[in-house]
Amino acid sequence: MSLLIRGGTVVDTTHSYRADVLCVDGKIAAVGPDLEAPPGAEVVDAGGLLVMPGGIDPHTHMELPFMGTVASDDFYTGTAAGFAGGTTSIIDFVIPNPQQSLLEAFRAWRGWAEKAAGDYAFHVAVTWWSESVREEMGILAREHGVASFKHFMAYKNAIMADDEVLVNSFRRALELGALPTVHAENGELVFQLQRELLAAGITGPEAHPLSRPPAVEGEAANRAIRIAEVIGVPLYIVHNSAKQALEAIARARGEGQRVFGEVLAGHLVIDDSVYQDSDFTRAAAHVMSPPFRAKEHQDALWKGLQAGHLHTTATDHCTFCAPQKAAGKDDFTKIPNGCGGIEDRMSILWHYGVNTGRLTPSEFVAVTSTNAARIFNLHPRKGAVEAGADADLVLWDPNGERTISAKTHHQNVDFNIFEGRTVRGVARRTIAAGKVVWDDGVLRAERGRGGICRGR
Amino acid sequence: MSLLIRGGTVVDTTHSYRADVLCVDGKIAAVGPDLEAPPGAEVVDAGGLLVMPGGIDPHTHMELPFMGTVASDDFYTGTAAGFAGGTTSIIDFVIPNPQQSLLEAFRAWRGWAEKAAGDYAFHVAVTWWSESVREEMGILAREHGVASFKHFMAYKNAIMADDEVLVNSFRRALELGALPTVHAENGELVFQLQRELLAAGITGPEAHPLSRPPAVEGEAANRAIRIAEVIGVPLYIVHNSAKQALEAIARARGEGQRVFGEVLAGHLVIDDSVYQDSDFTRAAAHVMSPPFRAKEHQDALWKGLQAGHLHTTATDHCTFCAPQKAAGKDDFTKIPNGCGGIEDRMSILWHYGVNTGRLTPSEFVAVTSTNAARIFNLHPRKGAVEAGADADLVLWDPNGERTISAKTHHQNVDFNIFEGRTVRGVARRTIAAGKVVWDDGVLRAERGRGGICRGR
Amino acid sequence: MSLLIRGGTVVDTTHSYRADVLCVDGKIAAVGPDLEAPPGAEVVDAGGLLVMPGGIDPHTHMELPFMGTVASDDFYTGTAAGFAGGTTSIIDFVIPNPQQSLLEAFRAWRGWAEKAAGDYAFHVAVTWWSESVREEMGILAREHGVASFKHFMAYKNAIMADDEVLVNSFRRALELGALPTVHAENGELVFQLQRELLAAGITGPEAHPLSRPPAVEGEAANRAIRIAEVIGVPLYIVHNSAKQALEAIARARGEGQRVFGEVLAGHLVIDDSVYQDSDFTRAAAHVMSPPFRAKEHQDALWKGLQAGHLHTTATDHCTFCAPQKAAGKDDFTKIPNGCGGIEDRMSILWHYGVNTGRLTPSEFVAVTSTNAARIFNLHPRKGAVEAGADADLVLWDPNGERTISAKTHHQNVDFNIFEGRTVRGVARRTIAAGKVVWDDGVLRAERGRGGICRGR
Amino acid sequence: MSLLIRGGTVVDTTHSYRADVLCVDGKIAAVGPDLEAPPGAEVVDAGGLLVMPGGIDPHTHMELPFMGTVASDDFYTGTAAGFAGGTTSIIDFVIPNPQQSLLEAFRAWRGWAEKAAGDYAFHVAVTWWSESVREEMGILAREHGVASFKHFMAYKNAIMADDEVLVNSFRRALELGALPTVHAENGELVFQLQRELLAAGITGPEAHPLSRPPAVEGEAANRAIRIAEVIGVPLYIVHNSAKQALEAIARARGEGQRVFGEVLAGHLVIDDSVYQDSDFTRAAAHVMSPPFRAKEHQDALWKGLQAGHLHTTATDHCTFCAPQKAAGKDDFTKIPNGCGGIEDRMSILWHYGVNTGRLTPSEFVAVTSTNAARIFNLHPRKGAVEAGADADLVLWDPNGERTISAKTHHQNVDFNIFEGRTVRGVARRTIAAGKVVWDDGVLRAERGRGGICRGR
Repeated sequence: MSLLIRGGTVVDTTHSYRADVLCVDGKIAAVGPDLEAPPGAEVVDAGGLLVMPGGIDPHTHMELPFMGTVASDDFYTGTAAGFAGGTTSIIDFVIPNPQQSLLEAFRAWRGWAEKAAGDYAFHVAVTWWSESVREEMGILAREHGVASFKHFMAYKNAIMADDEVLVNSFRRALELGALPTVHAENGELVFQLQRELLAAGITGPEAHPLSRPPAVEGEAANRAIRIAEVIGVPLYIVHNSAKQALEAIARARGEGQRVFGEVLAGHLVIDDSVYQDSDFTRAAAHVMSPPFRAKEHQDALWKGLQAGHLHTTATDHCTFCAPQKAAGKDDFTKIPNGCGGIEDRMSILWHYGVNTGRLTPSEFVAVTSTNAARIFNLHPRKGAVEAGADADLVLWDPNGERTISAKTHHQNVDFNIFEGRTVRGVARRTIAAGKVVWDDGVLRAERGRGGICRGR
Repeated sequence: MSLLIRGGTVVDTTHSYRADVLCVDGKIAAVGPDLEAPPGAEVVDAGGLLVMPGGIDPHTHMELPFMGTVASDDFYTGTAAGFAGGTTSIIDFVIPNPQQSLLEAFRAWRGWAEKAAGDYAFHVAVTWWSESVREEMGILAREHGVASFKHFMAYKNAIMADDEVLVNSFRRALELGALPTVHAENGELVFQLQRELLAAGITGPEAHPLSRPPAVEGEAANRAIRIAEVIGVPLYIVHNSAKQALEAIARARGEGQRVFGEVLAGHLVIDDSVYQDSDFTRAAAHVMSPPFRAKEHQDALWKGLQAGHLHTTATDHCTFCAPQKAAGKDDFTKIPNGCGGIEDRMSILWHYGVNTGRLTPSEFVAVTSTNAARIFNLHPRKGAVEAGADADLVLWDPNGERTISAKTHHQNVDFNIFEGRTVRGVARRTIAAGKVVWDDGVLRAERGRGGICRGR
Repeated sequence: MSLLIRGGTVVDTTHSYRADVLCVDGKIAAVGPDLEAPPGAEVVDAGGLLVMPGGIDPHTHMELPFMGTVASDDFYTGTAAGFAGGTTSIIDFVIPNPQQSLLEAFRAWRGWAEKAAGDYAFHVAVTWWSESVREEMGILAREHGVASFKHFMAYKNAIMADDEVLVNSFRRALELGALPTVHAENGELVFQLQRELLAAGITGPEAHPLSRPPAVEGEAANRAIRIAEVIGVPLYIVHNSAKQALEAIARARGEGQRVFGEVLAGHLVIDDSVYQDSDFTRAAAHVMSPPFRAKEHQDALWKGLQAGHLHTTATDHCTFCAPQKAAGKDDFTKIPNGCGGIEDRMSILWHYGVNTGRLTPSEFVAVTSTNAARIFNLHPRKGAVEAGADADLVLWDPNGERTISAKTHHQNVDFNIFEGRTVRGVARRTIAAGKVVWDDGVLRAERGRGGICRGR
Repeated sequence: MSLLIRGGTVVDTTHSYRADVLCVDGKIAAVGPDLEAPPGAEVVDAGGLLVMPGGIDPHTHMELPFMGTVASDDFYTGTAAGFAGGTTSIIDFVIPNPQQSLLEAFRAWRGWAEKAAGDYAFHVAVTWWSESVREEMGILAREHGVASFKHFMAYKNAIMADDEVLVNSFRRALELGALPTVHAENGELVFQLQRELLAAGITGPEAHPLSRPPAVEGEAANRAIRIAEVIGVPLYIVHNSAKQALEAIARARGEGQRVFGEVLAGHLVIDDSVYQDSDFTRAAAHVMSPPFRAKEHQDALWKGLQAGHLHTTATDHCTFCAPQKAAGKDDFTKIPNGCGGIEDRMSILWHYGVNTGRLTPSEFVAVTSTNAARIFNLHPRKGAVEAGADADLVLWDPNGERTISAKTHHQNVDFNIFEGRTVRGVARRTIAAGKVVWDDGVLRAERGRGGICRGR
């Protein structure tokens, strides 16, 4: 099965150049000028379009069981929605309960993921510590290609990893050549602030950001960084939202430490005024952790991307519909945490990043795809437009426009945090495993066609 | 009982001026030019000398029960040795065991302290958390004048305060108008590194600094600062030894946060080469926590004093003799932690600080006395040369020299970490409660003459 | 002539205490509890009031000939207006023209100053370089008590000091034990930006801040600091308005360098929206250099005061009335630069600084009076409430309120940049040289009663 | 003419992969697995070797007329020596005298460069300002492909650019889409310090670093950055040697500004102890500007490369033999400034960078070649291993060793600043324009075979 992309401009992390791309049997077979279409090949005209590696969202939670409910986008609907926005792969999270076997959890998630339309990989969370956890980390890394282990520094009395877990797990990751990652919020402070806010009768969504101020995130980011420094292991910090976290990363990198930072599309463009919405449904729809921040933080995050202190962009896609969010009607701590975004991440990055001159097209490719592939050991199978790579591509129309809306999006959720924004820069066509899965408005995702991805 | 100090130059935190000082009944009665001696008054000639507030050492551990033994300097010998160096007051630490009543511990320490020759106050450590701890903090603050509560972030499985203790206790301190203080080292990392070093067969004193690298201190300092920021309470960090901790303080202060830093005389002038001494006794004599650091840290600490990022100088005076230190002969983690210094702090600060041009005489007064008095609510009873203040004074000879040695010092310990250093700048006479207690080489300390000091 | 201030609370830079203050013959004769009034002494009731050293404004330009006109407040009206706000001394600037003798200029300014109601001292500007300048600096320092030399890094083609002047003059100041000070703006950039703005037809006051962006100030501050570092001389930077300048100071101080920073009352509370005023007169009334800044800078300046990176507060008092400002009606570069403020500085600092909890009363004393006195060698004659000091005092009513207005102020200018602000914290009585010169609304300034002040 | 490189591992800035490289007529024709050799093609075995883009040295001064003499390596010997070390292209500097036409100087340099063995491009220095300079910058950029203009902030009374030149030239570069670059040292301070040192009788090479302390460089770097910020133009700072300069770059980049930094191989591994050499010839051989620095700076520079604050590595290759250096025997300011290194840069970077774990092989490619090509608009013709690029390649033997020595090097100079160092990681073969020019010890450079390079 062949597909020839003709007449486009390939963009990679160093430059742009005119070239055709030939895909055969799900792989890129050739990249070069004036390629010939093999007999029977489908030919796609990419005139005026940029041919870039398909987006990789390194932070999603499809069909996550969380806070008494389950995220509304499953692996099928979620990956399909990604196609509509130019994203062809995700890295989701296996989250064992404390005391649960990591392997058992990994098998559960793998089962759920079988319905995915696009390729996926997994981070595995370490939520407790024992000798068996240490052993299962080894099995996951060596036999199942798990390249990264996640630690939640928040969510006390649930999945929070305290210093003992962090130190042991980071040390183990170093032995395995795996990358530790952290959700950086001081869970103890969040717990106390939540209690105090509720006690003071502040129970609505407006209390959510008050319970997780920037210092809570800055503290945890710095702690994880220092622990990684002492252990001598690289570190990846997910969803940095506060300039304090960013500064901790910049300091460590300036000392030669290998720390990687991720930022969410939402945190780049949405500020904390959303929590003042008098409509509970709308305010609650924005409840995620870390929360949206005051405007100065958005400015700092963009600068962090420009400076190379932040390396990847993600969404933390974890959708809950209004009836699910309503569980926290009288107690903001019971609102299921999470927002969507997988469908819109790339347009948001292009519109607010490239169109404004903050990022070059090559930097856009790096932060939406290649860097994630490199950091999580999926490169050059993913994140590269070169012979031998997976034929996961997006044909990007830098002049195309669309207005984002829950009414028209493909995500299985009734709200869109980017509602009403008109963006210039859209995925005209998306190609996954050599097939056109998003064809200028027509979604051709197939349930179960995705597979687990383990890099080379 | 009157004492007239005649002909000296008074130094306070803003300037120096020629004035006599009249002491009556243990208080300063007058400061001014050409004072008349009341009938029967003792007259001390201070010609060529600087008249400064007696030193306050805000960090001592006299007769501390620790690691299976008891510190060799008790409240009498320790405060007496302080007189010989110009220090007239100490602030010691009440350290309850986890689960022990704070009041019970406070009463024990008060009992031990009755033998003190000079005045003293207490910080009280919070080593665990419960409703009773919260209540007893209130009693201590309101009824016993306790102005500060200490938290050890190190010493896992012993007195370590985890985030839950820190958050609750800082909040309580805020309610009480008391100041939280921390020993900033990440106890979990120290614990793991100790285990790994012992497992690797590295058991001597040279392992001590390896088990407590600067990042361990930097992490904890930043964590405490961020917790204080969220709670909205000032913070005091004891014995900063690493530039990473200093930088955390400087960052917070630059953001307008009220954070105070202490530095030990030893950390200012001794580097980590001492742990390479092939003689166990000498190496072990330097085992304290945080450990002595590489040279770049000493430079940074002096700059911290100059910049106003550090406010007080102390000693962490906690002496153990060679037979006590020998408990860790085969396992460095069993060496009782602690060094002396109360007798030498002021000369070390003058010699390396004032003589080198780093500090002015007024800054010397601030960092050896007045700042500690102000921070811990003892000012202006202590730390001030003015009418109404306690008559605790030192007559400083900026040109006097002495060579520091365990053979001649008054501390009850067989080792001196400043051994062999010749310093210019000495206490010629020390006056406590209006009496000359150190008279040019003659120590006239009286057991039990000191009292608890609660500020105004 | 005696004056007894009875029943007040004296505030100095370390603490507050109840004491009476006796003034005799223009000096403070005694400070203590329950002083007796000498026969014939005037007694002032200070019950409920704070007795603080009179304010020192270290940056004024009375009757300055500038940009073709002369500042409207002369030494008499300006110092008198200071009395009404609690300020008793000023340090003004002698500004020779390039090629003019420094001594000649000094004599001119001394002559103008003879009409002053309060005491004054002078900084002398070095606006060019030659052997004669070097010699006259020596005469001024040694014979006339000049303690500081000023350098304008802005005002190209007028009084701008280029690197050659700076390096030579800083070196000379070091030899003399004098303190170099700088107005930190890169004059070349300002010149080019002014030209470009005018060429683009942007000629109104809104162009003023565009011609002097924060980077222009940050650059010059850093340059002066580095030059001072290489020469090995302390440095004082006047009217810091941008966080970039502040950061340069903080960095240098963190390295142990002695750099002092001044901030104007106006820059602390007024932002750059004033230049958008459609009324030329109002917009032009705010034209001064450096200009008012975006809000984030005000926040940073307050933190700089709290952190001790900034040491003094001033006004750059240099008033021009509307007809004078009108000279720049068609060309913003011709608007005489300058604003008033000497009458309001202390209330602004108290209201926005102490009432908000940013500064303690002791810090207020330091930054409005004592620090300036110490830095410019006027202490303890000025800036101190102690026997022997000049009897320049303010009796501060922390609960008094007033609304600032040009209609009621005593400054000889038709505009007040703080117009309409109601402040809590006012000078109830001001005492200069032992006389009540501001008596609860009644100004009793006497022309020519002030004198030049040279410290001890 | 064809050349097939078989069996090697291609390294680019994102990854390494096994591929053959076919070169035809001086260009890369194909990169891929198992390429067929065309008839008559030369086949080179790259088994066990890394195939990387040939090094680009973006900072050389071949046959520079300077300080009364001419650099000993001319364009032929210098580029040939580059081949022996894996460097295939240089970017040299056209340096007009003040008042000289830029075009006239450009033509002179182009003439000298015709003898080059490898390809070259030019930066053009702006050493004065006038309307004609403005016009000639345009001609150079538009008609001669000049992509960058250089400014010397040092060398007062010679080629120093003052703020007026900088501001005008940066503005002009922005208009032209060209990149301004600076040699960042405050020339006024250097001038004064030189004068003072000579006056004090300190005339030997040991005075050289004293006349150019780190603050001199930090000041100028910051000044150039701020001017670029105000103008809104990117900036490239050559040969950063001091951590103060690095910090200025890091700060600016953290604010989103586009600033690029270069570091010399020598500054990364040589410290200032070389100037203490009692042998004048050896000490003088190290005289270059900026000078070698204290050890802490080397550490900081490596971290800068790791953090991405520095982007390129160069040599400032500018060689003078002992008799030339002897011109400064009695006056260090007359020693011709300059050191060699083009032959050794890549081995130094690999040995001290990659072998120590500081840099990955992909980062090595970026900092020795690709980044320079991208920044100076030579990419992808230079700095890329891909079809269509120039066939400039190095076959790198990561296990090969050699000992650096002036006795064996190919540079036309009698001294080597890396003398005696044994490095692991050597250029086994170098290919320029599709020809093997360095063949495992045999140099096959051809005079005049290089050409000017203008990117795409």
